[in-house]
Amino acid sequence: MHDPIPLPVLRSTPGRGDAHREKKEKCGVVGIWGHPAAARLTYLAMYAQQHRGQESAGIAISDGHALTGFTGMGLVPEIFDSDTLEKLARSGPIAAIGHNRYSTAGGSLSCNAQPLIESYIAGQVGLAHNGNLINAEALRYAYEEAGHIFHTTSDTEVIIHLLASPQQQKSPDPLAATLRRLQGAFSLAFLFPDRIEVARDPWAWRPLVLGYLPAEADETGRPLGKPHEQGYPIVASETVALDVLGAKFIREIEPGEILCISDRGIHSRRFALPAPRLAKCVFEHVYFANPASNVFGQNVQTVREMLGEKLAAEAPVAADCVMPMPDSGRSAAAGYARASGIPYREGIVPNRYVGRTFIKPSQAERAAAVRLKLNVVSDIVAGKKLIVVDDSIVRGTTTKAKMDQLRQAGAKEIHLRISCPPIRHPCYFGVDFATRDQLIAHGREVEEIRRFLGVDSLHYLTLEGMLACVHGEARHWCTACYSGDYRLDPEHPVTDIVADSPQMAMFEQ
Amino acid sequence: MHDPIPLPVLRSTPGRGDAHREKKEKCGVVGIWGHPAAARLTYLAMYAQQHRGQESAGIAISDGHALTGFTGMGLVPEIFDSDTLEKLARSGPIAAIGHNRYSTAGGSLSCNAQPLIESYIAGQVGLAHNGNLINAEALRYAYEEAGHIFHTTSDTEVIIHLLASPQQQKSPDPLAATLRRLQGAFSLAFLFPDRIEVARDPWAWRPLVLGYLPAEADETGRPLGKPHEQGYPIVASETVALDVLGAKFIREIEPGEILCISDRGIHSRRFALPAPRLAKCVFEHVYFANPASNVFGQNVQTVREMLGEKLAAEAPVAADCVMPMPDSGRSAAAGYARASGIPYREGIVPNRYVGRTFIKPSQAERAAAVRLKLNVVSDIVAGKKLIVVDDSIVRGTTTKAKMDQLRQAGAKEIHLRISCPPIRHPCYFGVDFATRDQLIAHGREVEEIRRFLGVDSLHYLTLEGMLACVHGEARHWCTACYSGDYRLDPEHPVTDIVADSPQMAMFEQ
Amino acid sequence: MHDPIPLPVLRSTPGRGDAHREKKEKCGVVGIWGHPAAARLTYLAMYAQQHRGQESAGIAISDGHALTGFTGMGLVPEIFDSDTLEKLARSGPIAAIGHNRYSTAGGSLSCNAQPLIESYIAGQVGLAHNGNLINAEALRYAYEEAGHIFHTTSDTEVIIHLLASPQQQKSPDPLAATLRRLQGAFSLAFLFPDRIEVARDPWAWRPLVLGYLPAEADETGRPLGKPHEQGYPIVASETVALDVLGAKFIREIEPGEILCISDRGIHSRRFALPAPRLAKCVFEHVYFANPASNVFGQNVQTVREMLGEKLAAEAPVAADCVMPMPDSGRSAAAGYARASGIPYREGIVPNRYVGRTFIKPSQAERAAAVRLKLNVVSDIVAGKKLIVVDDSIVRGTTTKAKMDQLRQAGAKEIHLRISCPPIRHPCYFGVDFATRDQLIAHGREVEEIRRFLGVDSLHYLTLEGMLACVHGEARHWCTACYSGDYRLDPEHPVTDIVADSPQMAMFEQ
Amino acid sequence: MHDPIPLPVLRSTPGRGDAHREKKEKCGVVGIWGHPAAARLTYLAMYAQQHRGQESAGIAISDGHALTGFTGMGLVPEIFDSDTLEKLARSGPIAAIGHNRYSTAGGSLSCNAQPLIESYIAGQVGLAHNGNLINAEALRYAYEEAGHIFHTTSDTEVIIHLLASPQQQKSPDPLAATLRRLQGAFSLAFLFPDRIEVARDPWAWRPLVLGYLPAEADETGRPLGKPHEQGYPIVASETVALDVLGAKFIREIEPGEILCISDRGIHSRRFALPAPRLAKCVFEHVYFANPASNVFGQNVQTVREMLGEKLAAEAPVAADCVMPMPDSGRSAAAGYARASGIPYREGIVPNRYVGRTFIKPSQAERAAAVRLKLNVVSDIVAGKKLIVVDDSIVRGTTTKAKMDQLRQAGAKEIHLRISCPPIRHPCYFGVDFATRDQLIAHGREVEEIRRFLGVDSLHYLTLEGMLACVHGEARHWCTACYSGDYRLDPEHPVTDIVADSPQMAMFEQ
Repeated sequence: MHDPIPLPVLRSTPGRGDAHREKKEKCGVVGIWGHPAAARLTYLAMYAQQHRGQESAGIAISDGHALTGFTGMGLVPEIFDSDTLEKLARSGPIAAIGHNRYSTAGGSLSCNAQPLIESYIAGQVGLAHNGNLINAEALRYAYEEAGHIFHTTSDTEVIIHLLASPQQQKSPDPLAATLRRLQGAFSLAFLFPDRIEVARDPWAWRPLVLGYLPAEADETGRPLGKPHEQGYPIVASETVALDVLGAKFIREIEPGEILCISDRGIHSRRFALPAPRLAKCVFEHVYFANPASNVFGQNVQTVREMLGEKLAAEAPVAADCVMPMPDSGRSAAAGYARASGIPYREGIVPNRYVGRTFIKPSQAERAAAVRLKLNVVSDIVAGKKLIVVDDSIVRGTTTKAKMDQLRQAGAKEIHLRISCPPIRHPCYFGVDFATRDQLIAHGREVEEIRRFLGVDSLHYLTLEGMLACVHGEARHWCTACYSGDYRLDPEHPVTDIVADSPQMAMFEQ
Repeated sequence: MHDPIPLPVLRSTPGRGDAHREKKEKCGVVGIWGHPAAARLTYLAMYAQQHRGQESAGIAISDGHALTGFTGMGLVPEIFDSDTLEKLARSGPIAAIGHNRYSTAGGSLSCNAQPLIESYIAGQVGLAHNGNLINAEALRYAYEEAGHIFHTTSDTEVIIHLLASPQQQKSPDPLAATLRRLQGAFSLAFLFPDRIEVARDPWAWRPLVLGYLPAEADETGRPLGKPHEQGYPIVASETVALDVLGAKFIREIEPGEILCISDRGIHSRRFALPAPRLAKCVFEHVYFANPASNVFGQNVQTVREMLGEKLAAEAPVAADCVMPMPDSGRSAAAGYARASGIPYREGIVPNRYVGRTFIKPSQAERAAAVRLKLNVVSDIVAGKKLIVVDDSIVRGTTTKAKMDQLRQAGAKEIHLRISCPPIRHPCYFGVDFATRDQLIAHGREVEEIRRFLGVDSLHYLTLEGMLACVHGEARHWCTACYSGDYRLDPEHPVTDIVADSPQMAMFEQ
Repeated sequence: MHDPIPLPVLRSTPGRGDAHREKKEKCGVVGIWGHPAAARLTYLAMYAQQHRGQESAGIAISDGHALTGFTGMGLVPEIFDSDTLEKLARSGPIAAIGHNRYSTAGGSLSCNAQPLIESYIAGQVGLAHNGNLINAEALRYAYEEAGHIFHTTSDTEVIIHLLASPQQQKSPDPLAATLRRLQGAFSLAFLFPDRIEVARDPWAWRPLVLGYLPAEADETGRPLGKPHEQGYPIVASETVALDVLGAKFIREIEPGEILCISDRGIHSRRFALPAPRLAKCVFEHVYFANPASNVFGQNVQTVREMLGEKLAAEAPVAADCVMPMPDSGRSAAAGYARASGIPYREGIVPNRYVGRTFIKPSQAERAAAVRLKLNVVSDIVAGKKLIVVDDSIVRGTTTKAKMDQLRQAGAKEIHLRISCPPIRHPCYFGVDFATRDQLIAHGREVEEIRRFLGVDSLHYLTLEGMLACVHGEARHWCTACYSGDYRLDPEHPVTDIVADSPQMAMFEQ
Repeated sequence: MHDPIPLPVLRSTPGRGDAHREKKEKCGVVGIWGHPAAARLTYLAMYAQQHRGQESAGIAISDGHALTGFTGMGLVPEIFDSDTLEKLARSGPIAAIGHNRYSTAGGSLSCNAQPLIESYIAGQVGLAHNGNLINAEALRYAYEEAGHIFHTTSDTEVIIHLLASPQQQKSPDPLAATLRRLQGAFSLAFLFPDRIEVARDPWAWRPLVLGYLPAEADETGRPLGKPHEQGYPIVASETVALDVLGAKFIREIEPGEILCISDRGIHSRRFALPAPRLAKCVFEHVYFANPASNVFGQNVQTVREMLGEKLAAEAPVAADCVMPMPDSGRSAAAGYARASGIPYREGIVPNRYVGRTFIKPSQAERAAAVRLKLNVVSDIVAGKKLIVVDDSIVRGTTTKAKMDQLRQAGAKEIHLRISCPPIRHPCYFGVDFATRDQLIAHGREVEEIRRFLGVDSLHYLTLEGMLACVHGEARHWCTACYSGDYRLDPEHPVTDIVADSPQMAMFEQ
């Protein structure tokens, strides 16, 4: 040991260091420009978009010269207390972006909380991302081969590596050149010291909207901060964030568009043409978005009621009442009840306070912890024929537990109605259902699922029925999780640097 | 100053030290005997009863010899983390009582968190109280005159002073003698080192039920802890706590009854006859209790639906939809929709994540914080005639804000329907509405209220209509907040020591 | 069980509910009048007196009308963060009292944290206590028999019961009448809404001093708060608290004196004559007080150096160096080195950062956690003859561990010198050594102790040697822990209400 | 705005994104192999090295396949509570590295806390670094130009970029190739999933030692974890960490050496020859290291006493006592007293509990917060001629405040003695003194400094005097902060990739 002679060097097990990579993200983004309370307003907007992600959240701000930020694990109000918001406000922000991150099935790592803030040759950049890239892993591998290091396990970090690389930096529009390299779903908010830039993928997978907050003045009548003529620009994943802040909705960011927001105004440019066939995520309407939001130009709550009505038309049954699974099945159940004329009754009551319970040991306590979340109203259920309505079934275990609770409470018949088709294929574009094998409907007939759940009848809304409730041509909706019709092939993403998708290439200089 | 000669002594401003007393409490109690996981099970039961009080919570345990406990401000899961539960479990409890405390209008003080744990001549005692005493202040004053000191500002502490005083201690049954001195509403759980004693006032104001948790065995087949023949006794304010733990409901505690629960079994005795006219709180059905609970022998959800049906019968109106105020008006709205045949639609969507928001400064931010809690679905509201259903109106300010939001979203007509009569009188028995002057309906006609709220029509369910939905004779329900018909006169409580109410006196020895 | 017939009532095991009483307290008190930053200044003074108690701390403030406060477990800076101090400051205090509580051997309970704040017939009162009463238990029992309830297990609460009782309230000076009932050591700071009253027992057991903070003015030249002519009055256990705040020391509170501090000035009165034989605690000089303080009219550091010099004279030995046990033996070691001419060398280095270590499992880790606190400098110790100086030995286990560490590091000879006599008797007046049996010197000769510790020689300073270093007549010092000469008999406190000690009786009206 | 036409692209202000870079680090590192309690033992070792850095700390562990870790701001016991240690332990670590980070003058950022954990082409790597690189900025700039992104502002991250880059990866020994590229001070601990590799720069700037923890067995006699024949290998910055854990010291890591520690044993290799002229940091002896440690082969406490003796020889003066500035001047003061025969007396007493005080507003409170840290013993100081001994003066402001306190307490004469020469030049190799202009001695004669401090005489130990106290040739010690004799030119670091320092080049393949 005391002989300082070079010896054979140990190497880590070869591989790509990918043991802990996470892949799927379903998130919310927001950006606000020119308001001195940008951080606090972003916090409120993130609160309004909390349903889009509960794993972690963060805010990045610019004071015009440098970026700072704060991220944490948990819900927005758990991460940001008054001290933290105060500290962010003290630095005199002129702009802020925020991010809500979804709790994925795999391990959750604090290093993945967004917005990411990194330094590169052009200065600092913050980034918040909603969606999922299918060529991130290939790009990451290529960069690792070129000697780059990665701090997170998320697909978002690769976007900054692209932006920072000489190839893009040499381009007259490095950001556009970067975005042309991405394949998959991305609604992005970039924060630079002197501007916000937002962009949406050419397939329009995830929503992203622009609005204006009304200009405010201080007590002397001078405008607060630096409003544009129409007010302070705000971008967000959903219109509900605009509504909460009292902002006026202007329009969606268009597929393939970049908006650059700064003191000089808002400038739009394209990094790609819209895809010939868009891929608007129909699951935003079925489950993910806030009912009060307008998504892809249509109100979510209204769509969900129509899904319920359509379900009543497709699968009518004589019963005592229509009963929603709270809170997810409530809108469709109301539609079903309206269409069928069967009374709407709530026989399952959620406990509004349940978060974590610190209960481990005995079986009895574990069962209690489960029952705590949903209380069954025996008087409404016992001896009755029930039509139970829910929005979707993923793995089936939770649904089975709920059906069992209803049986134990004395339900005579249970007719389960689901307001979308069976989910049989994984999503590679931003919804982390589960792996293929964990999907109850993967490789199973509806009758098999019915037996597993122990219900008297089971009907899923048909693909046609579902698409009849949403606007626009059916071909512009992504229904891959139901149909397997993937717009991009996740197994064969385009990895090489020049061969981009055609609608992007024409913008390349 | 250097002359140590006695000088005139300064006295505090004379008075009764009552500057900071709180009066009203609306809470939940629970007690579990004989189970080694009594503390953890009590925690789960408190979680199930969280809707009865969100200001503070606590658990007191006995290891058979001494009491310890833990209380804190906030929600149950905020107060009890795994470490705290672990610590309580380590002491080897054989019994536990728990308490949820309601957030009252006035200042909230951590010293008022329950269960109280105090020492007196007979040892230690823990106490959890649901209800409110009208003679507490008079008794407190009498005790202060006799030289007693008070640690809290709650009416509950006086019960322990009564129990500790020689007058009661000399009695063959000090606890019964103590309870005979109390006027008002009280469902009580006492924890002594060797027993739990629970009691309910002779008027039956607040609910209190008994059940059994099924006996459990360890891996060797020996029973865990010390179950009774039927299982581990559990008492709770509501049946939902029993359901969550998988306990079997046995019966209500009777008015004027004490149950003593110990290793020797459960012994029932009376400290008073039931009042000739009971005072069951009808507001438990209207608003307070969990829909899944059976309260005063009737399911709460079913009662609420019937209130909505009755409302439809009393005040029909042509409209596009029946819309609940979430979450309070949902049950009655379903009943109204069912009875009227008008579709049930949810046009107001609650944000499930809103707790505290740390927003102070500008008007715009404050308005946003309000909108954050409820998102209006414009597409459902705009241009429509709405029947909006809620359970009650207290001060009216929140309701007005909601109606304004609906108008701004373009509602064409708003017909507000309330599933109970106007609240015109304060409650002195456990519901902290507000002072008389703060009640919107106090001294105001319905038409005045309608104008204030800015709705097109307003109807409150009649007293008769409401009482037709609940079981039993109308005279046994307390409707004082609607009718002013107080069972006991809060202004003239019986304060002197011997003159107790007649139904109690016959038990005095 | 369904038969509501009175049955035999279960009683708790008879007794006095005293299972969990704590007895000994060694603490610090402070009080500040008239300064708007009274709470923050009190916090600083408590910080300066942190050495007098690390278990818990608290502040009570008056805004002129009502008292509020905050207490917690741990060190002053752990309990009071900026938010808490801010909150106390916001209420506009005109006065504050503070308390540091000592970590006693037995269980520590958060309910015992001081200042106590209670309500009684005359209003609110806050109380901070340094010392220990020997008749507290008897008084508590008497009060419990009279029906009083107790919230804490400390001896301090009984003082408020005395004050509140009609017997004292009827007196023209209830506070003086209360103090005349107390037997033992007490330096007290009472906070009433309109005044601070401080008092010291007739035996002068514990220190208590008065000073003035210089008056301050705001930017307009108007005085801040309500200073007296000489400034803002401050009382504290030790002069170091005055020094830290820049206050001028005026004098000690005299034995048997009450000072009443209010807007009307400072008024002195007596509740008792000084005891014919005082009982100043010599252990304040030996160990407890801050070296920078003047206690009982003499500087502590100087006294400690003299104790070391005297030790060198009493027990000289040839050695390589004089080595202090850090930090307690440093002053005496310097004195020993100076007197003996043997070099002073620090061979044991404390780790300044050690608090709690979260290490449980293995023996190796436990040993490491012990070594972490004190690092031995092998180069200084190995092969050397050491004179090790410490201030005292209580249980002996820690000392033995330290001696073993020195031996393992290769010490050739260890001559242990202790700067006070063997502690052979418990203290009932405010120092919580241990029980009699836990004292290493109880019933053991010095030679036995030397063998147990494994040192080559051991010398304790003689009683005469020690008393030669402090001013005043030897008879006025309490040396009970060394000599067993107790000023009051702890086993037979005067419990009955009229028979007070003679020096108090002449003041009774 | 609605015209999606490419517009001129805004760029961030050009530059290198370096606004927030921190440069200096003075830290502690530790690494433990093969012990199942590696995380907890690392925590204890970090506790023992807490004096080397109080800003942040962290632990990274390997379970043999993947790395995880935890870092935080503050002291070791503030960052690691029992839950966090438990969580790290649960993952079944086989190795851990730890890091203490120094609080630098500039802003402290949580992203800079170490160990860094990053992914690169060969997998994961964790890194803890003590020292400072002078070519980090140039390398970082070069990497940024090549498109790399940076997550931290510390110089350590560039080491991982080097390691990850193809140039090094292509080398038969990528780690050695990486280290050859570094200029400056570096004692490094790398954690790979299957091994720890530690290295020390060819100049030996910072200490780094190897030891063995004794092998442990479980209750069945089987060895715990995977000890080597001599025990579990441990590396640490200082021997005190080994002592605390009961580990046996083996030897220093040699300049230019890499140790690879794995299940296969410990293998030593060289990445460079030792520099012809070493640069051992003499300031480790003067101030930085723990007195109980042996650093560069010599005990620190003994060296410090010798510095005091030398000081007494160089600058004798008649005085009443020798008084240390606590705690830094204590060792030298003892040496001075021993050599001069003048008594050692402690007239300044530190408050052991002072951390942060939350005091802002008034001047009086600020002054109090300063006095809180050090209490002057007036009785020892007043009217006396004092020799005050401290280890060094950096900016001079703190020293001046202390001297003023002594004057106010009545000191008659103050003779200040400093146990090292004037610090006139910044350190670029790991001690963050301050910038050149902030150094009181920069460009000032001793007489000027004496007048500024207001002392009667001032003497700094001479360079020769200082170097006479440490072993080895004077030319092998780095005294740049005193003499300006920098071993490497910080203004002209070798930046280009091939031209390495000669002693490294011969190892290049």
